Amino acid sequence: MPTITDLTTADVRFPTSRDLDGSDAMNADPDYSAAYVTLETDGEHHGASLVFTIGRGNDVVVAALDALRAHVVGRSIENLDDVNALSRDLIGDSQLRWLGPEKGVMHMAIGGVVDAAWDLLARQAGKPLWLLIGELTPEQLVSCIDFRYLTDAITPEQALALLTEKAAGKEQRIAQLREHGFPAYTTTPGWLGYADEKLVRLSHEAVDEGFTMIKLKVGADLDEDVRRLALARDAVGHHTRISVDANQRWDVADAIAWMTALAPYDPYWIEEPTSPDDVLGHAAIRTGLGHLGIKVATGEHCQNRVIAKQLMAAGGVDVFQLDATRMGGINELLAVLLLALRYDIPVCPHAGGVGLCEMVQHLAMADFVAFAGTTQDRYLEYVDHLHEHFTEPVRIADGAYVAPTRPGTGAEMLATSIADHTFPHGIVWAESTDTEESTHR
Amino acid sequence: MPTITDLTTADVRFPTSRDLDGSDAMNADPDYSAAYVTLETDGEHHGASLVFTIGRGNDVVVAALDALRAHVVGRSIENLDDVNALSRDLIGDSQLRWLGPEKGVMHMAIGGVVDAAWDLLARQAGKPLWLLIGELTPEQLVSCIDFRYLTDAITPEQALALLTEKAAGKEQRIAQLREHGFPAYTTTPGWLGYADEKLVRLSHEAVDEGFTMIKLKVGADLDEDVRRLALARDAVGHHTRISVDANQRWDVADAIAWMTALAPYDPYWIEEPTSPDDVLGHAAIRTGLGHLGIKVATGEHCQNRVIAKQLMAAGGVDVFQLDATRMGGINELLAVLLLALRYDIPVCPHAGGVGLCEMVQHLAMADFVAFAGTTQDRYLEYVDHLHEHFTEPVRIADGAYVAPTRPGTGAEMLATSIADHTFPHGIVWAESTDTEESTHR
Repeated sequence: MPTITDLTTADVRFPTSRDLDGSDAMNADPDYSAAYVTLETDGEHHGASLVFTIGRGNDVVVAALDALRAHVVGRSIENLDDVNALSRDLIGDSQLRWLGPEKGVMHMAIGGVVDAAWDLLARQAGKPLWLLIGELTPEQLVSCIDFRYLTDAITPEQALALLTEKAAGKEQRIAQLREHGFPAYTTTPGWLGYADEKLVRLSHEAVDEGFTMIKLKVGADLDEDVRRLALARDAVGHHTRISVDANQRWDVADAIAWMTALAPYDPYWIEEPTSPDDVLGHAAIRTGLGHLGIKVATGEHCQNRVIAKQLMAAGGVDVFQLDATRMGGINELLAVLLLALRYDIPVCPHAGGVGLCEMVQHLAMADFVAFAGTTQDRYLEYVDHLHEHFTEPVRIADGAYVAPTRPGTGAEMLATSIADHTFPHGIVWAESTDTEESTHR
Repeated sequence: MPTITDLTTADVRFPTSRDLDGSDAMNADPDYSAAYVTLETDGEHHGASLVFTIGRGNDVVVAALDALRAHVVGRSIENLDDVNALSRDLIGDSQLRWLGPEKGVMHMAIGGVVDAAWDLLARQAGKPLWLLIGELTPEQLVSCIDFRYLTDAITPEQALALLTEKAAGKEQRIAQLREHGFPAYTTTPGWLGYADEKLVRLSHEAVDEGFTMIKLKVGADLDEDVRRLALARDAVGHHTRISVDANQRWDVADAIAWMTALAPYDPYWIEEPTSPDDVLGHAAIRTGLGHLGIKVATGEHCQNRVIAKQLMAAGGVDVFQLDATRMGGINELLAVLLLALRYDIPVCPHAGGVGLCEMVQHLAMADFVAFAGTTQDRYLEYVDHLHEHFTEPVRIADGAYVAPTRPGTGAEMLATSIADHTFPHGIVWAESTDTEESTHR
């Protein structure tokens, strides 16, 4: 049985703020970053994962990962029960719990370590994560989930019944994924920092490439947003959906007024209209926009399953945007997929950044196979950016993610990419003349 | 104008798990700890503060404090506007924001730095914090508060009107605090790890010392809780209130059933019945317990003003338990005091741990002077523990906190206490033979 011999970390940052890639109304100058963690073992395989951040503070997540070393060294990861036990032990640690509970830096770091254990498990099984999860029995899926604080929404018994019902047809769905992949939408055209010409050109390209939805960032200036959305609508026509993303910029009344002004251009959803913590605010916005046919989407910053439960139960979301590295690891993401099934909310995961596409595609595909059972109104975000740094970069064909085949969770980066981008002494940063301004203002 | 020349930190931990002080249903073995931060200046004064934790992970908060050094060195803190600008800049930092937003380790560390700036301001003004805040004009109070995500509850204009109305009588309230202090309750008798004899003896002592409410930890075993609550009720009689605290142990249905079983012993409030993130769960519990006359209290783990707003607006709390070091600093705590005034919810702060009594007494007193205007049904928690490590230890007389007189926020520790308890090389830890077990399991 292979035993974990060490936990190693790296502070990996990409200087994306230099080109305004990733600019939006709240994140003016992100440097896409990864707090990278590896579980070394005395066996054939290792496990790797990352926590995505946007620059400053990546070192704090690395410190939180390092603080977990003593919790994992000496453990063995042989089967699913071992991964579930690690998840329970880390999230349940009574002293670490104080730092959240179950939210923020410590929770994200715990998620990183749990996900590295899943990566190790998937490599040992010789399967990509989506297939590993997809092939779990309903009983095994239920065993992954911490039902604490969820039983007013769904009990383990109810979950087992639901998942057993959904298990029929798994093999066909696995075959469908292998043949057609999972539907994607693209945010590539829509960053706030892009000029009109670039917005229009990239919108045309998105349609040509087979995408049936694109997304634009909004929320900095209403007149600008009206103009940009009109340009995009004109470029893509009326058969391609356009969603918009405010990145938490508004209070409740602002969100309703702003989106009412954009309604003539038929936005499909408004993403992150306000604070990701404001369940009741989202519900009020959704009520305020319902007559316009605009859906409310959020989830990328959803801290844990307790907020997810409330967003769904209170009518705060039409679409849940699962993020790969915000919560306490894959176990908690499975809890959220279960809740989405319970409340009949489509999961359209957040991606982009660095590594999020590579990682979250597995969750979207596992959702299709084992939970939702359909791709109706499901889209997985796609941004054409930084994929070359991963051992299995995502592949897009005809507007869909191609099902990954390599064993693991998708998070593993190339050793050279890690070395070159390690902050602050990797070659990319050491050569930079503006290191101080962009990362230590 | 004094300028900040350095930010220094210390990882200070007290081995409280050795005596089971602080044991409850979720926190079996806390080592009360402080991530301590000092802003050094080139002037006469410095500013100090701390973030309270319960052991493991204190190093992660220290790392987060260290990550803020470049944000403060070179700044000047001359007046209230400078402190408000620091708060806005730190909480608004677009890259750091990703790590919450506004929650968890990074938010707590930002709060620590903001509070150290308040400490510096109060020292320069020669006033204890409660008096400094108490004497601010309504306009100045409003200027401290970030209204983002709050305007569906209260606008700056509404806040100004409310606070102006409450300003009458400030001088009498300041005089009342100086003469009579602020009402306290004690948790000293009620830790789960204590034997019956100790529980009964400490309950008697609490009444003798003038406390009109005590608190017991519950939630590990129902039969035990019934027995302990019966003993305590017998010891204190029917004129002393007894509250109970489940430390997030239950789901919604558990909370209602358990408290219904304890109802015959007339508990005043149930504290933290479930996840601190579960606004709707708290509302359901409050509805379920209303006919028994049991109040619902929470707030000690409330991550920010957005959750506080919802707890109050949705009928999730009867009593809000402000914590000194969980949120983004004194500015955000003032936002919560404003919300409590808006929704007519009494604030009964959480204290205990190490330094929480010393710090939060200032907020309770400022609440009385500038916001609530009354001490009716207000209590400030008191635990007789670790006060000797502070430059101005809290003083209790006739069941009330004596108003502090020393300039500052109360967070400053003795240099010898910091040195002796620094983890892992301070004398208290270096001499310990069980360091590995208690802090690195």
